[in-house]
Amino acid sequence: MNAQPDKPQAGPEVRIAAHLAEDMAAVNALIRDRMASEHAPRIPEVTAHLIEAGGKRLRPMLTLAAARICGYEGNDHQKLAATVEFIHTATLLHDDVVDESERRRGRPTANLLWDNKSSVLVGDYLFARSFQLMVETGSLRVLDILANASAVIAEGEVLQLTAAQDLGTTEEIYLKVIRGKTAALFSAATEAGAVISGAPEAQIRALYDYGDALGIAFQIADDLLDYGGSAAAIGKNTGDDFRERKLTLPLIKAVAAADAEERAFWQRVIEKGDQREGDLEQALALMTKHGALTAARDDALAWSDKARKSLEILPEHPLRDLLSELAAYVVSRIN
Amino acid sequence: MNAQPDKPQAGPEVRIAAHLAEDMAAVNALIRDRMASEHAPRIPEVTAHLIEAGGKRLRPMLTLAAARICGYEGNDHQKLAATVEFIHTATLLHDDVVDESERRRGRPTANLLWDNKSSVLVGDYLFARSFQLMVETGSLRVLDILANASAVIAEGEVLQLTAAQDLGTTEEIYLKVIRGKTAALFSAATEAGAVISGAPEAQIRALYDYGDALGIAFQIADDLLDYGGSAAAIGKNTGDDFRERKLTLPLIKAVAAADAEERAFWQRVIEKGDQREGDLEQALALMTKHGALTAARDDALAWSDKARKSLEILPEHPLRDLLSELAAYVVSRIN
Repeated sequence: MNAQPDKPQAGPEVRIAAHLAEDMAAVNALIRDRMASEHAPRIPEVTAHLIEAGGKRLRPMLTLAAARICGYEGNDHQKLAATVEFIHTATLLHDDVVDESERRRGRPTANLLWDNKSSVLVGDYLFARSFQLMVETGSLRVLDILANASAVIAEGEVLQLTAAQDLGTTEEIYLKVIRGKTAALFSAATEAGAVISGAPEAQIRALYDYGDALGIAFQIADDLLDYGGSAAAIGKNTGDDFRERKLTLPLIKAVAAADAEERAFWQRVIEKGDQREGDLEQALALMTKHGALTAARDDALAWSDKARKSLEILPEHPLRDLLSELAAYVVSRIN
Repeated sequence: MNAQPDKPQAGPEVRIAAHLAEDMAAVNALIRDRMASEHAPRIPEVTAHLIEAGGKRLRPMLTLAAARICGYEGNDHQKLAATVEFIHTATLLHDDVVDESERRRGRPTANLLWDNKSSVLVGDYLFARSFQLMVETGSLRVLDILANASAVIAEGEVLQLTAAQDLGTTEEIYLKVIRGKTAALFSAATEAGAVISGAPEAQIRALYDYGDALGIAFQIADDLLDYGGSAAAIGKNTGDDFRERKLTLPLIKAVAAADAEERAFWQRVIEKGDQREGDLEQALALMTKHGALTAARDDALAWSDKARKSLEILPEHPLRDLLSELAAYVVSRIN
């Protein structure tokens, strides 16, 4: 007998992509087509750099999957999928200017390769292009969803800016920030997919809830991993948020439980930004002492559960099961 | 008899504002209301700085006037007027980052008072808000107009960036740049006002043409004034475009007529950016020699005429006459 060792199964996002291969090829063609600018060749140059850097295309896949689960048989969901990828890419371009970040997806950011000017203006161009694409679908309700998501995204970004270094940041504000940063576009992606399919209200609501909870779970997990996960393992990528004095969930929970002496520590390192050798280790010790890391993990798991439960009322479909796996997958790194 | 000296008449933009006082008050209230952000007070802080700096509100007035001329009696034109002002303000915010300009409308720019981050993100917020406002009107055709205008604006900005310092810039490219910079939002403002009123196609087309030609005339005049007007009078604000090596119409015309020696001069000062004492005077002398300044003035006057002629098919209305005066007014400074 030639027993073969079990081949490890690919992650759900890979299997979703395989399931949607034909749709995704159409979306990619649409993206290339709409990036083009006859007179401003700088535009595709900048965006191709980002779009072809091999992001997972998670957001367009959410739109396509939502539409297919709801039985959609047209092509407008492809336009909406390209729309959300353009919006996502535009926010990355603007974030790069804003954060003065040097790398994105393992490559130098556009604003280092070209300049801030190109990043701002090409981002604006992508917003405009996404706007044209969604108007082409002719659905006012979809336009309403995406307009509201845009406002939540922009407000969240400004909020993140003003909340940075502010120890008064609450979990409620944190939730608004991560909805803007991640969940608002996830939920708009799934909701728009359902709406364009003419799905019943309950299914539209379920897919909105799924995208919202998935995005929140994803972002909390990401923020927790920045502290090495719930076991607080220090690695080479640990502590970026701490050094940038960002108020993410583990830190907010530790600050809320701090005694007077601990509070003075947080004020020094976060508010004043006076960080010394050993401070990250001290921060992790305080988070562990107050159970802030495990509490953040539990929150992420609860949002992941909520995402999976919201799928239950949807019609049976292989993509429904894959979306459920995806919700488990995004928190698997912190378990 | 108490003969009084004639009181000089106010400019047409002031009389248009007076004629639309009630509408404008509603638009201003809408702008204040929609700028507000419960959790991000930075947003109204930044935008109020710009919006209340006393711009002429020319763009919202164009929308309101177009709607009124077409006999509109609803309120949606006010939402569209606020929309175009938000788009305009957002582009100013993004331009300020891009140009690293230090002053705007006589005040320090937002990016000096706050930072680049706020300018980029608050600009995005205003775009999102304008998007919500236009969706509220429920007119897909208006959304299409504004989506297309947004793309022309963004593409024009990128084009301006890549065309700077490039002596190969043609008048055709210049026209695309200034449509993006000025005329696209003017024509979208007037066209949207006509569409929301349910005006006949010929009137919609006429108001589009008016806004387009008005914007082009306005921008050529502005660019010509940067060289002191057609008489090339050097003043304290003369030559900014020359120093920034921008390819505006007078320069493009002078370069097109240059002999070999003159071409070497343009290459040194514009392409290489090696500018010395007396170079601006030399540039003006060359423009005068080739009639570039008077030719640019003639172009502006021709566009102004086109704007006025396009109004002829519209119904009689005091605002129609004022728009006609406005088209003459924007080129009166260069006559």
